[in-house]
Amino acid sequence: MMKTLSLHEYNIHIGSIRKNDIHELIDQGDVSQYFILVDEQTRKLCLPLFLEKTGLDPRAIIEIESGEIYKTIESCQKVWEELISYEADRKALLINLGGGVIGDLGGFAASTYKRGIRFVQVPTTLLSQLDASIGGKVGIDFSGYKNIIGSFNNPIAVFIDPEFYDTLPDRQLKSGFAEALKHALIADQKMWEEIRSTTDLRSLDWIPFLEKSLWIKKEIVEADPLERGARKALNFGHTIGHAIEGVSLESDKPLLHGEAIILGMMAESFIATCKGLLLPEEEREINQFLSFYVDFDFSLKNRALIYDLIKGDKKNEGNRILCTLLHSIGKYAINQEINLEEVEQSLVYLEEQFDLIDA
Amino acid sequence: MMKTLSLHEYNIHIGSIRKNDIHELIDQGDVSQYFILVDEQTRKLCLPLFLEKTGLDPRAIIEIESGEIYKTIESCQKVWEELISYEADRKALLINLGGGVIGDLGGFAASTYKRGIRFVQVPTTLLSQLDASIGGKVGIDFSGYKNIIGSFNNPIAVFIDPEFYDTLPDRQLKSGFAEALKHALIADQKMWEEIRSTTDLRSLDWIPFLEKSLWIKKEIVEADPLERGARKALNFGHTIGHAIEGVSLESDKPLLHGEAIILGMMAESFIATCKGLLLPEEEREINQFLSFYVDFDFSLKNRALIYDLIKGDKKNEGNRILCTLLHSIGKYAINQEINLEEVEQSLVYLEEQFDLIDA
Repeated sequence: MMKTLSLHEYNIHIGSIRKNDIHELIDQGDVSQYFILVDEQTRKLCLPLFLEKTGLDPRAIIEIESGEIYKTIESCQKVWEELISYEADRKALLINLGGGVIGDLGGFAASTYKRGIRFVQVPTTLLSQLDASIGGKVGIDFSGYKNIIGSFNNPIAVFIDPEFYDTLPDRQLKSGFAEALKHALIADQKMWEEIRSTTDLRSLDWIPFLEKSLWIKKEIVEADPLERGARKALNFGHTIGHAIEGVSLESDKPLLHGEAIILGMMAESFIATCKGLLLPEEEREINQFLSFYVDFDFSLKNRALIYDLIKGDKKNEGNRILCTLLHSIGKYAINQEINLEEVEQSLVYLEEQFDLIDA
Repeated sequence: MMKTLSLHEYNIHIGSIRKNDIHELIDQGDVSQYFILVDEQTRKLCLPLFLEKTGLDPRAIIEIESGEIYKTIESCQKVWEELISYEADRKALLINLGGGVIGDLGGFAASTYKRGIRFVQVPTTLLSQLDASIGGKVGIDFSGYKNIIGSFNNPIAVFIDPEFYDTLPDRQLKSGFAEALKHALIADQKMWEEIRSTTDLRSLDWIPFLEKSLWIKKEIVEADPLERGARKALNFGHTIGHAIEGVSLESDKPLLHGEAIILGMMAESFIATCKGLLLPEEEREINQFLSFYVDFDFSLKNRALIYDLIKGDKKNEGNRILCTLLHSIGKYAINQEINLEEVEQSLVYLEEQFDLIDA
């Protein structure tokens, strides 16, 4: 089965990648030469399957190192240098095969090479399929801040193939599920109920599920492409989540992005309840379920760093810390101001939930 | 006298900068804080006049080193770092005060910081006023290639003030005139005749002249914002000019950008005549006049580098070298394929014109 979700500027193909779809794109698009961007991991785990399915014969494979810590301007420079070395022109195409880092960094490198060449996203993790397929956000981390450098640029197509999940460890799959949990929590109570009845992710019927989750995101993004209003809904969990992720990168047990966002959603749900926005029983229902999806056992003691990261968040205005909070399951409020005291309380709450407070 | 040229997305104010115009922009634009980007030179030579005229009180002055060799990703990183250190949010504004490097690099840094903040261009050289005020091209040099990394992003306003010319040496003013010469040659024979009767640039009546030259550029760019067709007209002189500029940067007498473009226009006019496109008498008229505007006395012996630079030009497709050639004064043809033999002949021609061939 194959589903196609049509956006204004491109299509998302959901299901096992079909040879014709990607060849049509290249043949009809007046593409001069195409490149595949991978990291060490996806070169080994995903590239053989992708080449077998598509029969593509790229001008070159461009490889960067795996992991969020390589989502840097230096890796981006490496991609630019390789494109230059192969004399890639403005009609060249970059196919980004990998997780969020590859999609974001490859999209940014393509968007800025010769003032913009086209790119195709082939996200291979559940997280990047749900997070990065819609919205045109491309970019890199810089100076300790996630995604602080980047732009808005859409791919010419996205291919989402659940067969790549066979390459993902359980922990990654669970982490990726964070985005689906977020979509349900901000917009769809019924989907939230369905998700709560899911016991084994490996046996999920992925295609309709992916379609529904992406449809929620599409509706929100198309209503607000430049993130001036409604789209901020998608930042639920991200104000505190990004900061926790930043701290975790300095620990010896770094969190996956989705895991950090799950903690962020828990902390922000706690704050929403403290502010009287979200009912305590809903908060408990949400946070009890979310806590199954993350294994969290490092210290959040470096409060100064967390506060710095939160204060540097792109969504703030002036000195006000703004985030998206839940009103109830399926309903959100954007531009909610929170203060550092509330953040502090939510961090203590998280540490308690995961038994991280010394007795 | 003040003239305003209205483009689709912003206005170009031509004449002595008026306090009200820039304050209105900031007050009505919901700007959280504004920064002024300068280089060492414009900090000394232009900033005092600019602050006096505008009465602005920026959050900070951000300074990079002067010169094309600093139009790098490292300088861009410095701007990003300073914006981060002042906690610039998405409503921040960057005012770029300086020549082409400041405008291009500042525009690129702003376009990519937090996925894009607004910027105002205050070009202080004749060249950058004519070259960079329209078209939204922002970017940096990388790996030896000019402007190879960048994007298309418009400022929210441009202020063009001829009073800054008092800070320019004659050589810079003449170099900047290259753009006006180009606009006349590709689009306006009458303007070319007027220009030929100009004997002293310092006494030119600048405001109507700037308005006319910018109007030519506006008409071309608005017809083709993404440089798919007609806009390539503006690349006249640039295919060979950029390469000569690249070589000159390695000599001990680097050319100014406009000087290199003048040489490029001469070389490409020579090629146009060899191809039977341009009448020999027109080529002589053009090249004799252009040669007054550049003082050229270094070797073009490093042909390999010149060819490499030409082959890496953004306008090429696959292995074909494409450039814009004149049909006659005021008429052009885009996408003209030239080969390296023709380039070689044109370089020999240039060396002869400037008596650079050893007897």
